[in-house]
Amino acid sequence: MDIKQIITKKRDHQSLTKQEIEYFVTNYTNGTITDYQAAALTMAIYLNGMNEEETVYLTLAMANSGDILDLSELGTVVDKHSTGGIGDKVSLILVPIISSLGIPVAKMSGRGLGYTGGTIDKLETIPGYQTNLTTKEFMENVKKVGACLIGQTLNLAPADKKLYSLRDAICTTESIPLISSSIMSKKIAAGASKIVLEVTCGSGAFMKDRKQATTLAQMMQKIGKMTNKQTICVITNMEQPLGKAVGNSLEVLEATRFLKGTMQEDVKEVVLALGAYMIKLAGKGEDIEENKRKMLEQIKSGAAFSKYKQWIASQGGDISYLEDPAKWKKASYILPLIAKKTGYVTKLDAEKIGEIAMQLGAGRLKKEDTIKPEVGIVLEKKIGEKVEKGEILAYIHADEEMLAQKAKQDLEKVYEIGGKQQETKTVLEILM
Amino acid sequence: MDIKQIITKKRDHQSLTKQEIEYFVTNYTNGTITDYQAAALTMAIYLNGMNEEETVYLTLAMANSGDILDLSELGTVVDKHSTGGIGDKVSLILVPIISSLGIPVAKMSGRGLGYTGGTIDKLETIPGYQTNLTTKEFMENVKKVGACLIGQTLNLAPADKKLYSLRDAICTTESIPLISSSIMSKKIAAGASKIVLEVTCGSGAFMKDRKQATTLAQMMQKIGKMTNKQTICVITNMEQPLGKAVGNSLEVLEATRFLKGTMQEDVKEVVLALGAYMIKLAGKGEDIEENKRKMLEQIKSGAAFSKYKQWIASQGGDISYLEDPAKWKKASYILPLIAKKTGYVTKLDAEKIGEIAMQLGAGRLKKEDTIKPEVGIVLEKKIGEKVEKGEILAYIHADEEMLAQKAKQDLEKVYEIGGKQQETKTVLEILM
Repeated sequence: MDIKQIITKKRDHQSLTKQEIEYFVTNYTNGTITDYQAAALTMAIYLNGMNEEETVYLTLAMANSGDILDLSELGTVVDKHSTGGIGDKVSLILVPIISSLGIPVAKMSGRGLGYTGGTIDKLETIPGYQTNLTTKEFMENVKKVGACLIGQTLNLAPADKKLYSLRDAICTTESIPLISSSIMSKKIAAGASKIVLEVTCGSGAFMKDRKQATTLAQMMQKIGKMTNKQTICVITNMEQPLGKAVGNSLEVLEATRFLKGTMQEDVKEVVLALGAYMIKLAGKGEDIEENKRKMLEQIKSGAAFSKYKQWIASQGGDISYLEDPAKWKKASYILPLIAKKTGYVTKLDAEKIGEIAMQLGAGRLKKEDTIKPEVGIVLEKKIGEKVEKGEILAYIHADEEMLAQKAKQDLEKVYEIGGKQQETKTVLEILM
Repeated sequence: MDIKQIITKKRDHQSLTKQEIEYFVTNYTNGTITDYQAAALTMAIYLNGMNEEETVYLTLAMANSGDILDLSELGTVVDKHSTGGIGDKVSLILVPIISSLGIPVAKMSGRGLGYTGGTIDKLETIPGYQTNLTTKEFMENVKKVGACLIGQTLNLAPADKKLYSLRDAICTTESIPLISSSIMSKKIAAGASKIVLEVTCGSGAFMKDRKQATTLAQMMQKIGKMTNKQTICVITNMEQPLGKAVGNSLEVLEATRFLKGTMQEDVKEVVLALGAYMIKLAGKGEDIEENKRKMLEQIKSGAAFSKYKQWIASQGGDISYLEDPAKWKKASYILPLIAKKTGYVTKLDAEKIGEIAMQLGAGRLKKEDTIKPEVGIVLEKKIGEKVEKGEILAYIHADEEMLAQKAKQDLEKVYEIGGKQQETKTVLEILM
């Protein structure tokens, strides 16, 4: 067996065997197979596809390329993952709510490549928060506090890590077999026994249309089934950003307000749907509506916010920032965008808003880039909302005046205002 | 413009602009674009194709990536190129014949990657022959002797050189836009004003079928037309090896015998066809059949053999080897393959014979491999020939007994002998 035969097979639309896929993953991880050979194979996979069996073999080979966490002593651990979007602060909110219900949360998250930071980038805007724990510290935190959220620093699925950054550099991210095997290999290595997956769809997501999103969700469920990890998928709308804030510390502030009871409607819809199924999978409640009520009760009673502070403190974060929003460093330039006409917001393209946020410094173009925590956009009006001429549509948070002005001009073009009120729905479908 | 946008366009079946192709070629040559990004783009080109304009832009960008030879002081220089095959010793024979007719030959050839050596590897089996001349020495040799044949050592089309070795490592050689731009960029940089191209087709060639070969020939003619280089293509059959010998010094011996008047029929057919069109393009004879007669006359009179010795001597080669075949080092083991039944040779798969020759050491798997000059195969019976049980079909020339025995077993399977005599044709079509 050699890599040239494997490339040739996939180039010629043939299926790869389990042995061939394992050979590729093992030898790419250990450096025997070069980046350029992996790049050629990856582009061939992108263009010619992979069937279900190949996708499962790839998932397992990547999961087995490093350590596999054993979380069995924690009981049933339910993991949550999202294919990502603009303004996605859901994990920050879900972790304390679920944990406050006595369900352990042991989660690993990524940094962001692309428009905005990942969950880890957002958490790191809280002074002191440590994302770089050892496996032992991670397990101890979950046992003691009931929640821990760290970066991808353990040696989990290193093959996926290597292939993921290659895929980013060669424009082969949006591929169903490659996305599904990447996500599921990390979830398997991270030791979860049950998984709730949010599959985003729309302009701000990898999957641009509903059909693709459903196909991706079904593929991940099949991988879950074949690897004995019960998986529920929630398909959500990512035509416009989720919530109001887009930008790292701005999103932490929005998540904190949510846990204190000020809940943006679309964020609430997603948080309750994902959380209710996590509770169900954990065996702590069969009735989805009842689970949602329990979650809201945890917010109302302050239990979720308490758990939030306890969790952040246990990882070294300064919780005075959660208690007092005024402590946060603000961007030097905060410009309002004013509506020039009256009507309803009819479109608010998530991808374009992501690009504007990135131009402001909220995201990374390359792995080496640093993120500016305090910059971003706060959307005061979203799709379906009524707007009066002269009202504030949004705020630009920037650290340079030129960048602020440019972002304002760009954002003005993104806001489409028309005469007819549109309905929007955020949670589109549940696949069980 | 950046490479990720270019990869994305080709991945999504879009055409690249002239500027995008130039950007890629320039920045890949200077190392700004990585091998893995070039690999991804190359695989996308292989799978999604390139139209005529893109192919011409790629050809010109690669031709312009290094020096371009100016051969105008030599008059009309006609170049010859073959897409390659098993047992191809045509250049060794054509160079002295054409030169002996007063037509200057200034040619660059490659080393072989794959089944057998290239023309340069074959010439280097003549003790002393230098393939590594400067541009000045090259031009002086052509002026003084009328013929010079060197390796690809000058800084011609460096982009092609880099991309060609990448393509080999990632299995994207057999692509019409990539092959045609590779060949034509080298021909343009090498300064020829007119070109005769042999496009081989069949099991031992890149192009496995006639339709593909015609498409490749037409594409190269189009590039020729758009770059003002008159190009004639000769499509030849590569189902079985050309001539009797497959292996480096064995092929030089066959070429030498040819120039002394012992001509294998299929080699003669190809040499005369290519040569007759070279003479026509050089403006030295409109009548093709008359040109062929002139060529045969040069062999009969000894003029071609004299020119052969003069050329080889001018590049340092020891011509006593050309005069006395007994001087050549022979392989340690020469095993005959005996026919086990009577009939006609009906099939003699060129690719499989190439593989056997490579196993013996006549070819390279990797650039770094060294070639064993004296090993190979001599085919005594070819397709269409009558065979009596007990007759010798072929000889294996090997430097180890184990390798010889293995090659003999393999070659026995390749010789198909049946009851019906097959006709074969070597020159299939001329595209003018």
